[in-house]
Amino acid sequence: MAAEKWIFMVTAQTPTNIAVIKYWGKRDEVRILPVNDSISVTLDPDHLCTVTTVAVSPAFDRDRMWLNGKEISLSGSRYQNCLREIRSCAGDVEDKEKNIKIEKKDWEKLNLHIASHNNFPTAAGLASSAAGFACLVFSLAKLMNVDEDLSHLSAIARQGSGSACRSLFGGFVKWKMGSKEDGSDSVAVQLEDEKHWDDLVIIIAVVSSQQKETSSTSGMRESVETSLLLQHRAKEVVPKRVLQMEEAIKNRDFASLTRLSCADSNQFHAVCLDTSPPIFYMNDTSHRIISLVEKWNRSEGTPQVAYTFDAGPNAVLIARNRKVAVQLLQGLLYYFPPKPDTDMRSYVVGDTSILKEAGLDGANSVESLQPPPEIKDNIGSQDQKGEVSYFICTRPGRGPVVLHDQTQALLDPVTGLPK
Amino acid sequence: MAAEKWIFMVTAQTPTNIAVIKYWGKRDEVRILPVNDSISVTLDPDHLCTVTTVAVSPAFDRDRMWLNGKEISLSGSRYQNCLREIRSCAGDVEDKEKNIKIEKKDWEKLNLHIASHNNFPTAAGLASSAAGFACLVFSLAKLMNVDEDLSHLSAIARQGSGSACRSLFGGFVKWKMGSKEDGSDSVAVQLEDEKHWDDLVIIIAVVSSQQKETSSTSGMRESVETSLLLQHRAKEVVPKRVLQMEEAIKNRDFASLTRLSCADSNQFHAVCLDTSPPIFYMNDTSHRIISLVEKWNRSEGTPQVAYTFDAGPNAVLIARNRKVAVQLLQGLLYYFPPKPDTDMRSYVVGDTSILKEAGLDGANSVESLQPPPEIKDNIGSQDQKGEVSYFICTRPGRGPVVLHDQTQALLDPVTGLPK
Repeated sequence: MAAEKWIFMVTAQTPTNIAVIKYWGKRDEVRILPVNDSISVTLDPDHLCTVTTVAVSPAFDRDRMWLNGKEISLSGSRYQNCLREIRSCAGDVEDKEKNIKIEKKDWEKLNLHIASHNNFPTAAGLASSAAGFACLVFSLAKLMNVDEDLSHLSAIARQGSGSACRSLFGGFVKWKMGSKEDGSDSVAVQLEDEKHWDDLVIIIAVVSSQQKETSSTSGMRESVETSLLLQHRAKEVVPKRVLQMEEAIKNRDFASLTRLSCADSNQFHAVCLDTSPPIFYMNDTSHRIISLVEKWNRSEGTPQVAYTFDAGPNAVLIARNRKVAVQLLQGLLYYFPPKPDTDMRSYVVGDTSILKEAGLDGANSVESLQPPPEIKDNIGSQDQKGEVSYFICTRPGRGPVVLHDQTQALLDPVTGLPK
Repeated sequence: MAAEKWIFMVTAQTPTNIAVIKYWGKRDEVRILPVNDSISVTLDPDHLCTVTTVAVSPAFDRDRMWLNGKEISLSGSRYQNCLREIRSCAGDVEDKEKNIKIEKKDWEKLNLHIASHNNFPTAAGLASSAAGFACLVFSLAKLMNVDEDLSHLSAIARQGSGSACRSLFGGFVKWKMGSKEDGSDSVAVQLEDEKHWDDLVIIIAVVSSQQKETSSTSGMRESVETSLLLQHRAKEVVPKRVLQMEEAIKNRDFASLTRLSCADSNQFHAVCLDTSPPIFYMNDTSHRIISLVEKWNRSEGTPQVAYTFDAGPNAVLIARNRKVAVQLLQGLLYYFPPKPDTDMRSYVVGDTSILKEAGLDGANSVESLQPPPEIKDNIGSQDQKGEVSYFICTRPGRGPVVLHDQTQALLDPVTGLPK
């Protein structure tokens, strides 16, 4: 290790993911080991991602972290577990240009600065902790020259936030629950990459909510302790569904994807309701979105849109292709219009080319939309503007990448503090 | 049988009931045989009941029925099954005063007029079919001098509407699912009469809803066909709960009654959510009422109020005693005030003496109410007037009775038509 006060840093970007077979319930609270396998779709990081810069320097006197510009404590066991585990895998690092040399044994003594930023509102309930811990572990692994495969890194990220392990891969990902007591086989693996099924379009409805939500950590603990249906789900229902979902993804079988993801989302929320006291993540708006999708799918004969809801009221809708996505967005904007004077560009974000195809990017307003004939009058009319905060258009996306462009770094290369 | 055109009639009143261990799912759709036992509380017929007048006359040319003043068809299999079964049990009837004599064999040839009236809105989702079929069978049994016990009658009423069998008794009632293929042992029995636990006060919140609800008949069929949790509930969960609930009722153990009835209501709704497509009976208002009760119970340390929800958004709240009921009503009126200019006497109906004890019968308005300190700010404020249509205050009540006062008959004694 050189004596001068150098700073060495790495910036990485990691996607978020949405489970289509849900993770709900831990068999080990400390190691974060789940009661069942789960399967997710990774979302395009262009629209939803975390960017994290990690820096090391002999000048740093302690580990520090800033999340969305605000310093946060690293003293929690989840951060501590991730930092300890990744340090234990660290390798030798040499940057001849900068004359930096760090040996494996040095990492225990060196302190880190970490800055992380989500390109979406943290409060929106969009699994920011999944992308966040995945990005923390991935960027540290790059910084520390960790010679481990992504599945091994996923087991480290898992100890920060369970679903984070699935954000180490793009495309379609399975988190194998594993059976070992130490959790070393509870890892994520990629089922298919993001190019395998690139017809799919994903629209997320960020639903407004007055209710303070139960955190998924405490919610799943209460479900494990009190629900009499959770173990039956974990042992008897999910294992078969996981196999069927793997087949559906492999064969690009949209009908099966829809059947399985809708049923599994609803069953996860059923287990929440079977918890004491009951947990309600979906609200009347969520229910209306489900009714809209269910009616449309039935009227078409074959499924056009799959839905899934995580631990909150937001709907994640998967359209079978772009044409369906345009129709879906038109229907959603008809039934869930923005509040008056809302700019459409702030009401539909992400891949806004779909908005253009729906004829709604210019002078045309939502008022000009007609309801899809087959679902007219069935889910209530346009009477409650503002039920949905905004929509995000996206698609299945890639896994973590290192960002080499130094302008994207979140830490100043001289001070090591947030820019 | 005398030749002249006499009319012989009987009027009866039957209560409705609310399940605290739920019936959801049939193993035989035709005979209406359930997949599990259920337990209910009979509600005081002074506040919620059906009155039915049944008449027989050689002058009637066909069986006819009027429900709430409007003629309805009796051709459905449920009515036909009840009428056929009760006729098969008919006995000899003699009224010397009126010189009427009907022999057992005559009942097959004689036609019936039936008029039925609910003292509550049919559309309110308050199990009107339970009270209705129970009253039909009970009044016909009296008319026809049926020499069978109430449990046998309950098996006939069951074939009209499953939960009707529980309305043949007052107090606390168990519907035993039975095991025989012909359903003859799927009957209701009284666990305790209405005097056994007369501290209890019941407040029903009739919740406004825009959504068209799935009928319980089709809902439970879809659950049986598609829910992967229903059979587990029926076979593994409910049998134990039924035994525990019987003990709780026997011992007037309010804490256990609360734990079991809340858990079972939530699990029934969880199974509905696990159905494909999912069934949502509770809405955001139902959820807010649950949050209110759960928070209150936790803050008090011991349960004060139990809740249960049937196939709709209405909350049935069981207060441990009158003092608690007064506090509960105050809290409910604070969080769920009526629309402006609503007369309090139309907003709180039934046993309105509770309203008086709450200090809200006279000049005091809802605006004067303070939130219960322990739940303040926790479930949202008084911002959505009209979420609850009205409240009904009631209590556990008696079983069916014959009304001897002829002025209460719904059919004209001369014409045999509705008055």
